[in-house]
Amino acid sequence: MSISPQPAYVIGIDFGTQSARTILADAVSGRTAASAVTLYAHGVMDTHLPSGRPLPPLYALQHPADYLDVLRTSIPQVLSEAGISPQSVAGLGLDFTACTVLPCLRDGTPLCMTDRFSDDPEAFVKLWKHHAAQPEADAINALAKERHEAWLPVFGGRISSEWLLPKLLETLHKSPAVFDAAERYLEAADWLSFMLTGQETRSAAFAGYKACWQAGAGYPSDEFLTRLDPRLHGVVGTKISKNVLPVGGCAGHLDARGAELTGLCMGTPVALPMVDGHAAMPGLGLTGAGDMMMILGTSTCHIVNSTEGHAVPGICGYVKDGVIPGLYTYEAGQAAVGDIFDWFTKTSVPAAYTEEAAARGMSIHALLREKASRLKPGESGLVALDWFNGNRSVLGNSSLTGLIMGLTLRTRPEEIYRALIEATAFGTRRIFEQYEANGIPVRRVCAAGGIAAKDPMLMQIYADVTGREISVSGQTEASAVGSAVYAAVAAGSYPTVSTAARAFSVPDRAVYRPVPADQAVYDRLYRIYLTLHDRFGTEPDRLMETLGGIRDHCLADNE
Amino acid sequence: MSISPQPAYVIGIDFGTQSARTILADAVSGRTAASAVTLYAHGVMDTHLPSGRPLPPLYALQHPADYLDVLRTSIPQVLSEAGISPQSVAGLGLDFTACTVLPCLRDGTPLCMTDRFSDDPEAFVKLWKHHAAQPEADAINALAKERHEAWLPVFGGRISSEWLLPKLLETLHKSPAVFDAAERYLEAADWLSFMLTGQETRSAAFAGYKACWQAGAGYPSDEFLTRLDPRLHGVVGTKISKNVLPVGGCAGHLDARGAELTGLCMGTPVALPMVDGHAAMPGLGLTGAGDMMMILGTSTCHIVNSTEGHAVPGICGYVKDGVIPGLYTYEAGQAAVGDIFDWFTKTSVPAAYTEEAAARGMSIHALLREKASRLKPGESGLVALDWFNGNRSVLGNSSLTGLIMGLTLRTRPEEIYRALIEATAFGTRRIFEQYEANGIPVRRVCAAGGIAAKDPMLMQIYADVTGREISVSGQTEASAVGSAVYAAVAAGSYPTVSTAARAFSVPDRAVYRPVPADQAVYDRLYRIYLTLHDRFGTEPDRLMETLGGIRDHCLADNE
Repeated sequence: MSISPQPAYVIGIDFGTQSARTILADAVSGRTAASAVTLYAHGVMDTHLPSGRPLPPLYALQHPADYLDVLRTSIPQVLSEAGISPQSVAGLGLDFTACTVLPCLRDGTPLCMTDRFSDDPEAFVKLWKHHAAQPEADAINALAKERHEAWLPVFGGRISSEWLLPKLLETLHKSPAVFDAAERYLEAADWLSFMLTGQETRSAAFAGYKACWQAGAGYPSDEFLTRLDPRLHGVVGTKISKNVLPVGGCAGHLDARGAELTGLCMGTPVALPMVDGHAAMPGLGLTGAGDMMMILGTSTCHIVNSTEGHAVPGICGYVKDGVIPGLYTYEAGQAAVGDIFDWFTKTSVPAAYTEEAAARGMSIHALLREKASRLKPGESGLVALDWFNGNRSVLGNSSLTGLIMGLTLRTRPEEIYRALIEATAFGTRRIFEQYEANGIPVRRVCAAGGIAAKDPMLMQIYADVTGREISVSGQTEASAVGSAVYAAVAAGSYPTVSTAARAFSVPDRAVYRPVPADQAVYDRLYRIYLTLHDRFGTEPDRLMETLGGIRDHCLADNE
Repeated sequence: MSISPQPAYVIGIDFGTQSARTILADAVSGRTAASAVTLYAHGVMDTHLPSGRPLPPLYALQHPADYLDVLRTSIPQVLSEAGISPQSVAGLGLDFTACTVLPCLRDGTPLCMTDRFSDDPEAFVKLWKHHAAQPEADAINALAKERHEAWLPVFGGRISSEWLLPKLLETLHKSPAVFDAAERYLEAADWLSFMLTGQETRSAAFAGYKACWQAGAGYPSDEFLTRLDPRLHGVVGTKISKNVLPVGGCAGHLDARGAELTGLCMGTPVALPMVDGHAAMPGLGLTGAGDMMMILGTSTCHIVNSTEGHAVPGICGYVKDGVIPGLYTYEAGQAAVGDIFDWFTKTSVPAAYTEEAAARGMSIHALLREKASRLKPGESGLVALDWFNGNRSVLGNSSLTGLIMGLTLRTRPEEIYRALIEATAFGTRRIFEQYEANGIPVRRVCAAGGIAAKDPMLMQIYADVTGREISVSGQTEASAVGSAVYAAVAAGSYPTVSTAARAFSVPDRAVYRPVPADQAVYDRLYRIYLTLHDRFGTEPDRLMETLGGIRDHCLADNE
């Protein structure tokens, strides 16, 4: 008598900005058996700490306990939904927003969860979109440029205030006590992996894309860091781990605490965590050179594989073997996309529209899309700059701000809404052009993320603006599926990321092709966008930064 | 036995954009005995004609029957309210928006009220803010510049698309049949005066400020007009009256039709009509050199008296004896002010604010003011360009558009609202500086209009931005009172406009003085405004006009 083997499953968890998405997938076919979304109880803290303490401008913090709650809640939920026992789970993978960092004790205890620091903003998780470290980023860029640091061109010639070093330096400046007490300064993803496996590791994905680390060369030198601030001496190797592991492998196995947190079996393999955007590449089957993935969410990432490694100015960086073994994978991005549309619906849509949407049982976004889709390209007479959260690529300047030009007394809300969508499309086209002008071909564009699935008008605008065919995968949970792909490799179900990705991939749900007449109008509008882009982004009078400086000065006076 | 003489009254009517305000005043003391507001039934027609025929972009038309309804309704109403008989009315004065023009038959019948043309947009009243004649204004400016026409510098070096010649030329281009049928092309004010008195006259105020007429030199030459278009040959003297009369005098006396329209006695003197803004000067007692009146309403006029006549670039024009006998009076203006704030409240304020305002029984403007007044200057990080209806002074370009810079995901509605108010204050400061840099001192600034009375926050911002003391008169119906002043002169109650104005004046209701700390912040923000102003208003790439051209092309394709 033979017992048929119980089918194996893998779990992928995608830790996003407001919530985490967990999927349970067949370890061989990739078929999703169950999925769950868990909101973070504290969400994004940008006005005050849980204690009520107000936060300075540009802060965006999170509470690490929320991530543990995701594990405790969502894993049992998907198992129960699919009727699967913990024993059937062969591997766990996770991906995380980046750079999202927190200071901890040696044993992984977050400083914000100690009595001493529970009211210090610097002790909390700094979310990727925490933008208060711009002065530190400016100082790092200036010194790196002055010293011709070899790593600087690899990361686009200018590092972002969102990255690890500026955030760490900000903590040193604003709360030396937290800096001193921080025995470790971890990516939230690596911290979670530590909590699950009991082993501290450092994923090359985060080190490479967000901490200026390169295979071979390592992190920026201690000499550089010490010149930046003598108190940074020795920080690499103590607070920042040098134990950087290549993606596609195992971070470890669930220990007793990890098993208790997840309800899974001790010893279950945990894949090395991935940057959320990057995890979606194999999730969508994009494992070839020239494959571009555009993840449209609150912000947008433009990730492309290449056979060559070039420094591309203004592109956030590239890492070899960072996503797909054997290829260089580049990342660029727009710091706000869906966030802009959400801002607009929350702050700028009149009651008559809200009431119409309610009466017709549709979301305000759906109503605005309906009205905006009746407009022809160019008809609104508006062009906007999509810098509501700064510009990540290709200017790399988080002090830049949004702009709307062409307003008249006849301008209607749907016209502004459409202009904001078009602005993000122009920003994407600018990034495509930067890649191609620097020898990184973009051959195939696949859009993913919630917006790609939900907004055909936006997708058509992107096709018209970029003059490219854009496909939308049927895979709507690409990052979580990607994490499941890495889990399947960690579990041994597949030998490589590429073979697992191929097995997990699903057919396109839609393909958007440029409409020539609309493309021609957008070519003209794009030239106006580019003029604004260069005028405000590159001209030496730095008008937006000057204005931001006046604002910051006033806010400091108010405190 | 002596019968004490019945006290004499005068009536002043201020024909505004949406409504007319009528006051009945004591002819000697100026004390207001009654007042009335009458809305225009057709309002501003900017989307379609009464027939349902859609209007092209930038159109702003009115129906002349609405003006007659004002006479029929409001005059009996103020008489009845004050308990005054028609016999006690010694004079009637009126002021009107300008340039607001209509084509008529010789007997004054508006073409839009004939069967033949009741569905032709060109046959209706073109309101001051009708902006579809920009191509014609461009052609006139180009030819006048080429020919070094002597009148051009007098009117700011560039005439506005709002003025008479562009509007007439537009009619010739778009509807030659209306042009041919138009035996007269009249200012609405002169047309109303014609309807009241049976005599066609032409007020120097309108001819001087809006039709490029100067005492002595007259209108632009027939040679110039014929070069513009051969069909304009002979238009001056036929369609456009040369019978230009100085202000301060009588247009005529009510005839039988005028008496029937108004319910007043035949023979009642009718003062020569005034431009609405100008009428407010004597209404506020501003009869000296260096006296500046700023009327803050849907748009803003900046009117200043001077002992000297200079060509001031970008100032709309100056006319000697045009307002106060013996002085040159200059006019500049901002094409949209209150209109911008209204646009904002109608299009861009979220339901939560609307609901809060309703729950607290306040207007949405009052709620926004309350929230905006808690902000410090500079705190929003926003600077806007106030060109939502083009720029009248000092750029004289109605193709320019509004712009908001500094938007972030944290920007709140009240911040934008305040930035829009500040933008209009910066625009005013730019105009003050243009006057003074060109030898026209501004010694005393008096604000009038609905906004000056209702919005202390705005007035304080204007004082801080301009660095000047600004008084607000207790006179809230300055234009209508000014019309009553001219009516009192026409009635013989006073020998001159100045003596009547002195008698009619009332004490200030408020004086706003700059707060040094806020003034300093606004000096910095003003430099940013000026940079944007020059970048978008004077740089040769004409970015806003290019964008507007794309818009107009798209809209033309849609038709």
